[in-house]
Amino acid sequence: MPTLSFLTTCHFDHGALGLLQKSLDRLGLKRPLIATDKGIAAAGILDTVKAAMTDGGSAAVFDETPGNPTEAAVMKALNLYQSEGCDGVIALGGGSAMDLGKTVALLAVSGGPLAQYDPLTGGNKLVKGIAPVIAIPTTSGTGSEVSLGMVIVLDDGRKMTFGNPKFIPTIAVCDPDLTLGLPPMLTAATGMDAITHCIEAVLTPTINPPADGVGLDGLWRGWRYLPRAVRHGDDKEARWQMMMASTEGAHAFTKGLGSVHAMSHAIGRREDLKLHHGTLNAVILPAVLRFNAPHCEEKYDRLRAAMGLEFHADVAEAIEKMNEYIGMPSGLKAMGVSEDMIDDFVPHALADLAHRTNPVQPTAEDYKALFMAAM
Amino acid sequence: MPTLSFLTTCHFDHGALGLLQKSLDRLGLKRPLIATDKGIAAAGILDTVKAAMTDGGSAAVFDETPGNPTEAAVMKALNLYQSEGCDGVIALGGGSAMDLGKTVALLAVSGGPLAQYDPLTGGNKLVKGIAPVIAIPTTSGTGSEVSLGMVIVLDDGRKMTFGNPKFIPTIAVCDPDLTLGLPPMLTAATGMDAITHCIEAVLTPTINPPADGVGLDGLWRGWRYLPRAVRHGDDKEARWQMMMASTEGAHAFTKGLGSVHAMSHAIGRREDLKLHHGTLNAVILPAVLRFNAPHCEEKYDRLRAAMGLEFHADVAEAIEKMNEYIGMPSGLKAMGVSEDMIDDFVPHALADLAHRTNPVQPTAEDYKALFMAAM
Repeated sequence: MPTLSFLTTCHFDHGALGLLQKSLDRLGLKRPLIATDKGIAAAGILDTVKAAMTDGGSAAVFDETPGNPTEAAVMKALNLYQSEGCDGVIALGGGSAMDLGKTVALLAVSGGPLAQYDPLTGGNKLVKGIAPVIAIPTTSGTGSEVSLGMVIVLDDGRKMTFGNPKFIPTIAVCDPDLTLGLPPMLTAATGMDAITHCIEAVLTPTINPPADGVGLDGLWRGWRYLPRAVRHGDDKEARWQMMMASTEGAHAFTKGLGSVHAMSHAIGRREDLKLHHGTLNAVILPAVLRFNAPHCEEKYDRLRAAMGLEFHADVAEAIEKMNEYIGMPSGLKAMGVSEDMIDDFVPHALADLAHRTNPVQPTAEDYKALFMAAM
Repeated sequence: MPTLSFLTTCHFDHGALGLLQKSLDRLGLKRPLIATDKGIAAAGILDTVKAAMTDGGSAAVFDETPGNPTEAAVMKALNLYQSEGCDGVIALGGGSAMDLGKTVALLAVSGGPLAQYDPLTGGNKLVKGIAPVIAIPTTSGTGSEVSLGMVIVLDDGRKMTFGNPKFIPTIAVCDPDLTLGLPPMLTAATGMDAITHCIEAVLTPTINPPADGVGLDGLWRGWRYLPRAVRHGDDKEARWQMMMASTEGAHAFTKGLGSVHAMSHAIGRREDLKLHHGTLNAVILPAVLRFNAPHCEEKYDRLRAAMGLEFHADVAEAIEKMNEYIGMPSGLKAMGVSEDMIDDFVPHALADLAHRTNPVQPTAEDYKALFMAAM
């Protein structure tokens, strides 16, 4: 039976960072760990955030989040959290830093090892609690600031998705001004991540109409404003709309995601490739849209309406044109993926949590064909 | 600054009533007051609900909710709540019974007089708390089961809207099967109430895109399924979809409502007229849509897309056609309202909470013209 419940408090506007100290006070946090990465620090955003805090100057900072967050990095940050006597986490960054921060908060209260919390093996029953998290996104894509999930590459090489309503950050502080300096390529890739979230969430057969509505609104918004945000990074309106699309995408994917994410995680776990999650989603999305189309025709009508496409227009083709327009790679091959890697990817796609909520479940053969189509 | 927060746990499906006892147990309720009306009792729904409870046979029942709930009825129910030693409320019925039940729960914890909680005079600061409420809708229209508001006719004749996140029922049990016996006229009138909620919520300038998305999804659903639910009352799918549209309408109107509701409340407060809230909304909606149109063109495009109308189709005319098709009266005159009453309505419309969140605020002259147009 569908049980609808919604998300968390989200302060959202230009200048929302001004509410950070108030948010810390509300949660009673005296000594938060700021979990972030070196890019955020180098861009000056870490300093901006510290300046918004009463004791920002002496805050504990972990800035070594890798591009795809790993269990090893989580453990290093957890050690810092414990040795500094922290009482909560400020998860500051894109999806990687926010996911790392949320995972540190989980282990700080519920203890390790991390792999035991795999939702596919009943791990959610072992979650005792999570330290308070204030999430501050610096990209518009992941939506991790309001999402119940995080994705971590384990020491054993698996890219594991954790998902539990308890993992939703206690407070999200969404300030689009923090994304004004994001370069075009990262704006495009993270924006396509948000768009993929909205689309896959809507297509998932899980019954949750309010979440469908939120996903379609995010798609409507993201589709209109992404080209503007890519071309004119200082367009405050476009940045606001893209951050909203990102937040809405994560609201929507409480329903689940689909095979785009299953495939993207299967490639993204490879540390040798170092590929960006949003870019992977962007180039894989058209192939999966063609695969799913016969199984959810009415929903495709609704995608078209949100995207302003003509009746019966080819949704996959529209995505390909958008990818080209905003400078995404033409396919996996252009990103350095070769055909001989596909056999390694397929079992990971089949084992991914997102695979289960695709409209239909692709077989191993289907996944091979899908990876080929995305090359 | 927009602060987005969402609503309550909502068990939603055919047979959801089977979760009632579990919901009572979850809240630790041993002696709930069932707040309902004589129509619900006569239709056998009260017995169905009692049968879903362990101690249903001996439950305390208040079944004297009037068509538009009054302060006097609230006080009578509150006396019963207190004399029976109740510890919470099961609010069972349409908007009237649910609003009455929620108001009893408020006064049981926060104390009277009721008028002090007027949100327009800072009354929300006086709310100390509210007893646990499980809301069970028996119509698809009001959405009071997930809404933060209730509307009560005070002893002094004012129809007052109370609104506070604390007034959202703790648990909503939405079982569309309870609406299978609803007669066509009431199905049509309550359905148009849901549709009006979705439309007015979307048009409200308050910034809350997720709520816009939910409202548009509710409109998409309600517009497609209302004629089926009216013509074929036993169509379970149509009943499910209409109850979802109703719940989504109330999710959406956390943003606020507009002048349709301001006008409808101004008429509905008159006990001599005894007019149905949903029917009033249905016949007033076209006039307000024509008044608002120049001020929110992009939103009208989105309404058209959700309703499946052609580009630049007249939304107000589409509502008029729907009203005619499902048997709504042709206007206020056909409902027994006469022109000489308008001067009495206007100040109440201007003073209504919903007036403040219309896209533009009509003047007294505007309201006169709007009431005339709706005649």
